[in-house]
Amino acid sequence: MGKIIQPRTLKGFRDQLPASMIPRERLIDTAREVYRSFGFVPIDTPALEYTEILLGKGSDESDKQMYRFEDPGGRDVSMRFDLTIPLARFVAQHVGTLGTPFKRYQIGPVWRGENTQRGRYREFTQCDFDTIGTESALADAETILVIHSLFSRLGVGGFTIHVNERRILSGLFDRLGLLDVSVPLLRALDKLDKIGADGVTAEMVREASVTEQQAQEVLRWAGLKGSNQEVLDALPEMVAGSEEGEAGLKRLREVVEGATAGGVTADQLVINLGIARGLDYYTGIVFETTLDDLPGIGSCCSGGRYDDLASLYTKQRLPGVGASLGLDRLLAALEELERTEQIATTADVFLVLFGDQRIPDHIQLAAELRSAGLNVELYPEPKKLSAQFKYADRRGHTLAIVVGDEEWQRGVAQLKQMGNKQSQEVPLKDLPAACRKLLAGE
Amino acid sequence: MGKIIQPRTLKGFRDQLPASMIPRERLIDTAREVYRSFGFVPIDTPALEYTEILLGKGSDESDKQMYRFEDPGGRDVSMRFDLTIPLARFVAQHVGTLGTPFKRYQIGPVWRGENTQRGRYREFTQCDFDTIGTESALADAETILVIHSLFSRLGVGGFTIHVNERRILSGLFDRLGLLDVSVPLLRALDKLDKIGADGVTAEMVREASVTEQQAQEVLRWAGLKGSNQEVLDALPEMVAGSEEGEAGLKRLREVVEGATAGGVTADQLVINLGIARGLDYYTGIVFETTLDDLPGIGSCCSGGRYDDLASLYTKQRLPGVGASLGLDRLLAALEELERTEQIATTADVFLVLFGDQRIPDHIQLAAELRSAGLNVELYPEPKKLSAQFKYADRRGHTLAIVVGDEEWQRGVAQLKQMGNKQSQEVPLKDLPAACRKLLAGE
Repeated sequence: MGKIIQPRTLKGFRDQLPASMIPRERLIDTAREVYRSFGFVPIDTPALEYTEILLGKGSDESDKQMYRFEDPGGRDVSMRFDLTIPLARFVAQHVGTLGTPFKRYQIGPVWRGENTQRGRYREFTQCDFDTIGTESALADAETILVIHSLFSRLGVGGFTIHVNERRILSGLFDRLGLLDVSVPLLRALDKLDKIGADGVTAEMVREASVTEQQAQEVLRWAGLKGSNQEVLDALPEMVAGSEEGEAGLKRLREVVEGATAGGVTADQLVINLGIARGLDYYTGIVFETTLDDLPGIGSCCSGGRYDDLASLYTKQRLPGVGASLGLDRLLAALEELERTEQIATTADVFLVLFGDQRIPDHIQLAAELRSAGLNVELYPEPKKLSAQFKYADRRGHTLAIVVGDEEWQRGVAQLKQMGNKQSQEVPLKDLPAACRKLLAGE
Repeated sequence: MGKIIQPRTLKGFRDQLPASMIPRERLIDTAREVYRSFGFVPIDTPALEYTEILLGKGSDESDKQMYRFEDPGGRDVSMRFDLTIPLARFVAQHVGTLGTPFKRYQIGPVWRGENTQRGRYREFTQCDFDTIGTESALADAETILVIHSLFSRLGVGGFTIHVNERRILSGLFDRLGLLDVSVPLLRALDKLDKIGADGVTAEMVREASVTEQQAQEVLRWAGLKGSNQEVLDALPEMVAGSEEGEAGLKRLREVVEGATAGGVTADQLVINLGIARGLDYYTGIVFETTLDDLPGIGSCCSGGRYDDLASLYTKQRLPGVGASLGLDRLLAALEELERTEQIATTADVFLVLFGDQRIPDHIQLAAELRSAGLNVELYPEPKKLSAQFKYADRRGHTLAIVVGDEEWQRGVAQLKQMGNKQSQEVPLKDLPAACRKLLAGE
């Protein structure tokens, strides 16, 4: 036996133990069900791509964070940083086969060599959905409806979808003569929650070379408060004379109308002119989603419209709109809100293994219960009852079944509820029905 | 606009388009359901680990195939090559929290810088399940039951699980005085399907320094044919006098008995002494699974017992048994057997968007249908009917709904079956029930 290698993960990487993986799988399942209910279809793209492809159009900051290396064939390759750039490459490559509009979801890990000090991880899962190949307001509204449907089902309590249209801000910049510095202005505005109004003003003055007064004018409009109708009524003044601003305002009205028709209530959808999104590729609607019970955790689902992302890879115009679900942030929120169960089993029913000679009988009984649609874990060794129950307690099974020698003779089982320790004798043939009844809480 | 970057994937990597991703997701869902029905719990481990961890105990061949590089922090890291070595590291690290027995499944991508000429890919998905921390025969038998349950549900037709016990071969080697060359003997034997009896004989003579006669004696036993009972009856002679061989034979009997009790039929489980498995870490039962309609595609689910894999990372003894589902091979088989549907949509119902002024009405109708549990795709632009139907034809929706202006007035819809082009008029309020009825094939 050689020396022991210390078992450990890399900094910024982590294992998912069952107690965290089970709610994670449940959340991903819900996201998939919702995406599918709107007709989004699954795709996948490689973890590794040519660096040239991925360098694409993210911000400078994102380029610096890529895991980049030379592969054994001498190619300059990188691990994917998000699922948006690969999507742009994917549709450019396959649009002839896919046709448009193309609605896809993609769920998978991405890697960023980020500073881990802020509790961020270098490997995390993204859950994206996007509609490619249409500029329609309906696709924008539907993106909000997907978020609405998703958060209504996640069990995270109330939520607010904050929506903006970048062209409305552009209209303001246009009116103020600041169109050519809109990128640094938007980047600064995106940090409002983090660095406050004074910080944003300072950054705008520094990075966009605007006057303090101009920065404050931008911030005044970005902070506009009121009902959606009040804000919509005030906006014509903000974008007056800017064609782009007026187009953005028209689009925002259509999106709010569409989302409302689809069941989003006025308190769930809020026009927020302060939402800018840091990424440079957004060109229209942008949105973020916060949890009413935990606003401080930040946006748990963000996205927007990007009308020329695929232009890096094709001359065909492929506009898109979509969003990314912040899976890890949502799981952290669910945990903080104590809305996850601490369960480390996928089987409701635990079958105690009793007696060396009865192993085939137990295997057969477990198989019968599974055929009846129950998830059943059979303990693999005929250990003492107390040891087996300790195991089941730790895992969190709901029901336990014990069939001792004498019970096999009589064709009955002891069916025990692990929560309240109540036990009942049930004929073996009635076990599936009895289990289902207890599991349904009857 | 800068120059166009040619959209492409790396050699050995591929995109998953919806038509292949939809059956892939279905297969993974089935695997998860089956694993969960036996109480296996999900975990995940990082894609990147310290190279030192992953170099572990695979074969020399696997070590050469790793994607290995220096990360930005100067660490020697590699992308995971399989899910077994990371599992060994995982349980060594977390056994205190997890407790034993520990039954886990893990589904995720792995990377190998393999020669791609044999139609192999450098990125593929593994679907593993393992039971750690028990040496019980029940856990071995249960592994076979999981494979049996899985393949019974996959729709791949008949299948055969080939089972062997490495210690029985060791018993033979012991009797022939060849125990010290069992590793090269097993590696050679594993190639029987690929290089034939003559090739294996030659490799045994060359790599294990045995005589041709000894090699043929090994091959004679490895090729033993007959019913499981006949083979079990012949085996005492093969392992006579070897304690290890007799322990292996006892275990094989128990496993066959347990699998039979769980519902595996005699034609689905075949003792095959030629199954050796190339990997060095197996120490007991080993198995492979072939499709009766496509035996040539090779094993679609393989695994076995490894009793000291975690010993690289901990002094605690952590025996295990498990298997890996060959997802890509199975999907290729399903395609070759023409048992996958060519569908590129997740929505059964396609809702035509009709009329600029009716967009909110359509959004509301789609939302109502979804609330009734239907998956509904609403076309995002009010294009010509023919264009929208062409889209639906291409995607493969089952039903299409058209509500024109006049139909909105009357509160009805045209409900069309895309397959036979039959159409019926249905009151809007009855649409969910009418859709469900048609989808159920009534």
